[in-house]
Amino acid sequence: MTVSPLAPAHFPELPVVEGVQVATLAAGLRYQGRADLMLALVPEGSSVAGTFTSSLCPSAPVDWCRKMLPGGRGRAIVVNSGNANAFTGRHGETAAELTATTIAGVLSIPPEEVFLASTGVIGENLPTEALTDALPALATSLEPAGPQTWESVADAIRTTDTFAKGAGTSLVVGDTTVHVAGIAKGSGMIAPDMATMLGFVFTDAKVSPSALQSLLSNSVEHSYNRITVDSDTSTSDTVLLFATGAAGSDEITGAGDPGYAGLAAALRSINLDLAHQIVRDGEGATKFVEVTVTGADSDAAAKIIALSIANSPLVKTAVAAEDANWGRIVMAIGKAGQRADRDSLSVWIGDELVADGGVQHPEYSEARATEHLQNDHVRIRTDVGIGAGNATVWTCDLTHGYIDINAGYRS
Amino acid sequence: MTVSPLAPAHFPELPVVEGVQVATLAAGLRYQGRADLMLALVPEGSSVAGTFTSSLCPSAPVDWCRKMLPGGRGRAIVVNSGNANAFTGRHGETAAELTATTIAGVLSIPPEEVFLASTGVIGENLPTEALTDALPALATSLEPAGPQTWESVADAIRTTDTFAKGAGTSLVVGDTTVHVAGIAKGSGMIAPDMATMLGFVFTDAKVSPSALQSLLSNSVEHSYNRITVDSDTSTSDTVLLFATGAAGSDEITGAGDPGYAGLAAALRSINLDLAHQIVRDGEGATKFVEVTVTGADSDAAAKIIALSIANSPLVKTAVAAEDANWGRIVMAIGKAGQRADRDSLSVWIGDELVADGGVQHPEYSEARATEHLQNDHVRIRTDVGIGAGNATVWTCDLTHGYIDINAGYRS
Repeated sequence: MTVSPLAPAHFPELPVVEGVQVATLAAGLRYQGRADLMLALVPEGSSVAGTFTSSLCPSAPVDWCRKMLPGGRGRAIVVNSGNANAFTGRHGETAAELTATTIAGVLSIPPEEVFLASTGVIGENLPTEALTDALPALATSLEPAGPQTWESVADAIRTTDTFAKGAGTSLVVGDTTVHVAGIAKGSGMIAPDMATMLGFVFTDAKVSPSALQSLLSNSVEHSYNRITVDSDTSTSDTVLLFATGAAGSDEITGAGDPGYAGLAAALRSINLDLAHQIVRDGEGATKFVEVTVTGADSDAAAKIIALSIANSPLVKTAVAAEDANWGRIVMAIGKAGQRADRDSLSVWIGDELVADGGVQHPEYSEARATEHLQNDHVRIRTDVGIGAGNATVWTCDLTHGYIDINAGYRS
Repeated sequence: MTVSPLAPAHFPELPVVEGVQVATLAAGLRYQGRADLMLALVPEGSSVAGTFTSSLCPSAPVDWCRKMLPGGRGRAIVVNSGNANAFTGRHGETAAELTATTIAGVLSIPPEEVFLASTGVIGENLPTEALTDALPALATSLEPAGPQTWESVADAIRTTDTFAKGAGTSLVVGDTTVHVAGIAKGSGMIAPDMATMLGFVFTDAKVSPSALQSLLSNSVEHSYNRITVDSDTSTSDTVLLFATGAAGSDEITGAGDPGYAGLAAALRSINLDLAHQIVRDGEGATKFVEVTVTGADSDAAAKIIALSIANSPLVKTAVAAEDANWGRIVMAIGKAGQRADRDSLSVWIGDELVADGGVQHPEYSEARATEHLQNDHVRIRTDVGIGAGNATVWTCDLTHGYIDINAGYRS
């Protein structure tokens, strides 16, 4: 598999997050010769927060996590790649339950504090016995999460991803330095068979479950919920955030506490970084595309218009071809169903003002717009002339590579 | 340009529609060596009905037609191909008005009974003078619409369409035989630059404007509004229906009148035929795909789920590859946002029951499903297990051809 041309130069150096231990194993569940199981263990009393797919056909692990999340406490997460355990009925439910109870027994932790995620082909039964048989060996190889281990963990959860994705930082809460590190997988909404976007973030700050959930939900709305590769939504999307408290900082219990704002900013930045890496690994991607909408009725309206542009196959094929076909941007604004004033609409490609006041700008230079499109980071911007709502979303172009990968993957 | 492999064997033999005269002309507005202007003239007192794009950035001709439609009377329609006259501001508005007043002067008819449509590249000014200069010659070549002329009219409105599209029939209203004939253009939502779907239908039955509008709106909802190629919506979509009354049948003024039901059925069949031809000419299409949803909360919910499947790039690339990757169908149902019972969901590919009760069916044969996918007419069906709502929509597959056409068109 060729690495995406938009991939970062190397996996980042991620910090030790106190209290977090991780392990990976090649269990041969679907792939050969690579790790396909991942385990993370955090100390007793750690908080957990989660966000999940909006699909009405969620996977069994998503159902399991949703059931356990209200407790607010998490000790472990088990992830397998290659099989999504989605649309597998009672078998899938039992497989999830057995995975959780088995690892709980091995680690002597409560099963209701075990979280699960599966990614891969859907509709096929998980090989439950092979998976549960592998769990004791997986637990044996636990070691502290740090610069030496994060990349292997990020590797173990890949499916069609062409590179491992990680992001992290450190910050001060009160007078204590705390650490945050996250990994993610996703290659569009898809890789493979749409069983797609997973993200796991860990911090050693001490945060109450409710504060942690609010921190996570806000950062997800401004990161993973602002990217699209092909408009298809997974059955399995899962983002989990664990807070171990092992750094010894004071507990954050709400937005007014010291450190809340700093941690919110750190999480937003890490999740946005991971989300951008997913777009950069979008199937067939050759361009990273930023779409900004201003002047809409509301921020929500701006986001809908931005996603209409970012999801338009016509806009995405034009970007792939480096063709400044700006009429397609106007088309996508028009179809979004949100208020826009055609006659005061402005459109930019990069910094080139293409159209203004409902017509092509008199000084528009197609040559300059084309020059911008030759970059691998493309910016499209529109002001829809109605109000003060704005939003930015990110996507990639639509190329022959997308067709090759998705028409060929299963066979 | 290669003709679509899904094209009908030949253009159909369409009837004479009494009172309708048509003309075409190669005015060189954008294309060379082919007709790019079309005119139809109908007798005084003819009724007209119309439906238009839902885009909030509609073209100048759409604005013009919307303004004139409430009068309910139409004498002429002028159509140019190659330039959409969309996003052209005041220039576009003036161009539309000049086209209407010029042809009105030439034909001695009221300008407010002239209708307009333009299809092609958007954001470029219409060459107004070249167009209006050509109108007298266009009017001179008017001749009765019949088997010899319909195809040339359908040809004149093509852009990237690979074949001319027509459909027609005859029926008895009271004791009088009346005729209906229609032409359309469209090759997805796109051809070229999304300036896309036009349809013009003529009957010599006598129908009041309000009855005609209700007949048209109903048939459009069950035909053009049930097809998708790539989910992109034009600035220019226009369907107009003219009724000349020249066949001498009794006037139809409402749903209770004799002939209303028959004419409704005829229009639905003609518009569905034209809509299917547009899908068969979808950019890059190699498969005609029928998606049926039953068991939804309502017919409207069923249509949303069906369009979610029909618009999914993952479903469309799998169909192109003849890959029975049914998990993607489940994904598309799950993301539609409409109620579905995952655990009583059924999915069929052709007549093969793939999944039932939330799991793969025990007797499912991937070989049989694959065999069905090797046809050029593919059927996908799901019952979502909730209620009695149902809908069928039509689409095509997503292939390298789509990328080639849309990444390459303008250059």
